[in-house]
Amino acid sequence: MSRSLLMSVEEAIAALLAMAQVQRLQDSEPVVLGEARQRVLANDLIATLDLPPWPNSAMDGYALNVGDWTGEPLAVSQQIFAGVAPEALLPGTCARIFTGAPVPAGANCVEMQENVQVLEDGRVRFTQPLSVSQNIRPQGQENQAGQVLLAAGKRLGPFELAIAAAQGCTHVPVVRRPRVALLSTGDELAEPGTPLKPGCIYNSNRTLLSHWLSALGCEVIDGGILPDQPQRTRLKLEQLQHAADLILTTGGVSAGDADCLGQVLRECGKPLFWKLAIKPGKPLTVGYFGNVPMIGLPGNPTSALVTFGLLARAYLLRIQGVEDVTPLSFMVNISFDWPKAGNRREYLRARLEEGKAVLYPNQSSGVLLGASWADGLVEIPEGHTLQAGDTARFIPFCDLF
Amino acid sequence: MSRSLLMSVEEAIAALLAMAQVQRLQDSEPVVLGEARQRVLANDLIATLDLPPWPNSAMDGYALNVGDWTGEPLAVSQQIFAGVAPEALLPGTCARIFTGAPVPAGANCVEMQENVQVLEDGRVRFTQPLSVSQNIRPQGQENQAGQVLLAAGKRLGPFELAIAAAQGCTHVPVVRRPRVALLSTGDELAEPGTPLKPGCIYNSNRTLLSHWLSALGCEVIDGGILPDQPQRTRLKLEQLQHAADLILTTGGVSAGDADCLGQVLRECGKPLFWKLAIKPGKPLTVGYFGNVPMIGLPGNPTSALVTFGLLARAYLLRIQGVEDVTPLSFMVNISFDWPKAGNRREYLRARLEEGKAVLYPNQSSGVLLGASWADGLVEIPEGHTLQAGDTARFIPFCDLF
Repeated sequence: MSRSLLMSVEEAIAALLAMAQVQRLQDSEPVVLGEARQRVLANDLIATLDLPPWPNSAMDGYALNVGDWTGEPLAVSQQIFAGVAPEALLPGTCARIFTGAPVPAGANCVEMQENVQVLEDGRVRFTQPLSVSQNIRPQGQENQAGQVLLAAGKRLGPFELAIAAAQGCTHVPVVRRPRVALLSTGDELAEPGTPLKPGCIYNSNRTLLSHWLSALGCEVIDGGILPDQPQRTRLKLEQLQHAADLILTTGGVSAGDADCLGQVLRECGKPLFWKLAIKPGKPLTVGYFGNVPMIGLPGNPTSALVTFGLLARAYLLRIQGVEDVTPLSFMVNISFDWPKAGNRREYLRARLEEGKAVLYPNQSSGVLLGASWADGLVEIPEGHTLQAGDTARFIPFCDLF
Repeated sequence: MSRSLLMSVEEAIAALLAMAQVQRLQDSEPVVLGEARQRVLANDLIATLDLPPWPNSAMDGYALNVGDWTGEPLAVSQQIFAGVAPEALLPGTCARIFTGAPVPAGANCVEMQENVQVLEDGRVRFTQPLSVSQNIRPQGQENQAGQVLLAAGKRLGPFELAIAAAQGCTHVPVVRRPRVALLSTGDELAEPGTPLKPGCIYNSNRTLLSHWLSALGCEVIDGGILPDQPQRTRLKLEQLQHAADLILTTGGVSAGDADCLGQVLRECGKPLFWKLAIKPGKPLTVGYFGNVPMIGLPGNPTSALVTFGLLARAYLLRIQGVEDVTPLSFMVNISFDWPKAGNRREYLRARLEEGKAVLYPNQSSGVLLGASWADGLVEIPEGHTLQAGDTARFIPFCDLF
């Protein structure tokens, strides 16, 4: 097959993101912090508070005004614990103060307790040079009221939700969940838990993708297993198009006679592109059925995994408003030779061992064990040969969820 | 402070893992695949099926016995779709076959449809050289019955659950969830959603840690906010020790008079270690209260984040039986100078930009915004100076969840 018939990975991602731009979800909802993980922020989170809300002590020690310090011991005029509002500092005295406690008006320095001498009469002698602002966290050092803390489109994890909690928020506005109708196609597919008939295999893609979709904030509409029958396929798609923001399918998109999903899409829908310069995953098919976008992943588990992780994931994040949909990646040395340049960009399951990418021995697109063994994907650009010790891009799986 | 008083990060991790070994959770429970993500496998998952269960075709094409091929066209004696049990191949004929369909007994080769010529009478002429096993995925290529697919102690994500589904499993045996009592200490802490009194700040650590604990498979017992009062602290710990596998606290573990959690642990419990050679996070305190392990994280949000991610996480995974608790890391070039060697190992919030680690400008331990901005942590070993262009270890946050 000539390379020119295949669409590059970049072009396919660009086409999917252009589609996503049109399909951006407009509705949002307030969600309690405890349930907002893996959702996407709908509006900028703007600080309502300076943090810290007042200057506070970074140490356990003594607060004083440097101008009052003559070298003579100072009397301790108050104790300031965290969580209380202190009185203004009595001139010519110091205050016992603890970490996180507000620095009293009139004080401009905190000396750590390790550097003072407490006399028998309770007065305190400072033994080291003192400077203004020392050990004081100024008001607003972390953020100032009015500042944008998190921009709309930010995915919410533990860090982001803690930032919202620190502002006193109990809820955050998030984009509504994308509703994804998940359809597995193939006469050979059996449900786990049922007896396996001759010629059949258990459906694993639904488990793979429903967990992954949840991790990306999606609501999964289980469309079940669809036999390879154009009429039933068409009816099912017609039914799902009213319920879903995206129809996500596995299998049925190769060129063969039995691959009726691609066939139905060509006859009754609007295919946009199919056949990618990617390995595994060449048959990925994207289009519209009615007004509903449809992404047809190949049926082989690793092909489904690679195309979902590198392409469908970006689409699903972007319709939620996520700007940066490019997964984390970095260059690594490879421990293997790649003597034959391919006409498709190849993604190999690999582990990092002492900084080098080591391949899972069986790179067949049917083999999911390799993905579980691996830390991520090594990307081999089309048209390239490589030798052990060369560098290649590595995409860790952990950032794809 | 002399360096010798501080415990190294390695020693602290080793001590926590030794503790975890004693505290390993023994109970397991079967959990339906749809709810088993982020849990830990309790027993080896052993294949009950060869995968594929029978030799099948990797292509849409024609199955034949290479011995029957003389250069003359062959009649097509059957059509084999995926999901059916084919009859044995009639000698001297070929069979139409589709991707994933079982190869019939008697056939030993599949030729892709692009390489055949279908004659008007329906017979098929093979135009390219043929070889035995070509385009056939042998039975058991992915795995063989009896093989260990996933070892006990494996964390279950979408890939692992799909592997279980492919074997026909509906449930997997997982280690029971660790019950973690989460306590925030400090008179200054206010609940989000309540008015903020002078001198107070909102509690963000509970939000940070409860989400993170869930992601690690834990059940969170909310111990609320505890004032800095030794008597109440002690009562609370006595009450929680019967409900929890671990008491996880934030704040109250520095050396100051108001840090009563450390004080209560020293008086009524059994502290094991405190004061680590880590920045941020030096006050991390580990011990037992009664028979219950207790990890006291520092109260500053970034200190809590770093010590939870690098130390408490490892403990919580190991009590569930996870063997490899070391997070993914790799070496990166740094874009900054580090002119002053510290006496503690320092973890800086950084982003990867074109492969280089770029620091968040404000590395104060109070500032959570940096963690949200960053991709992970750059590790600066104690006693080292570095220059821009040098390499340092980078730990991406995504693998810490």
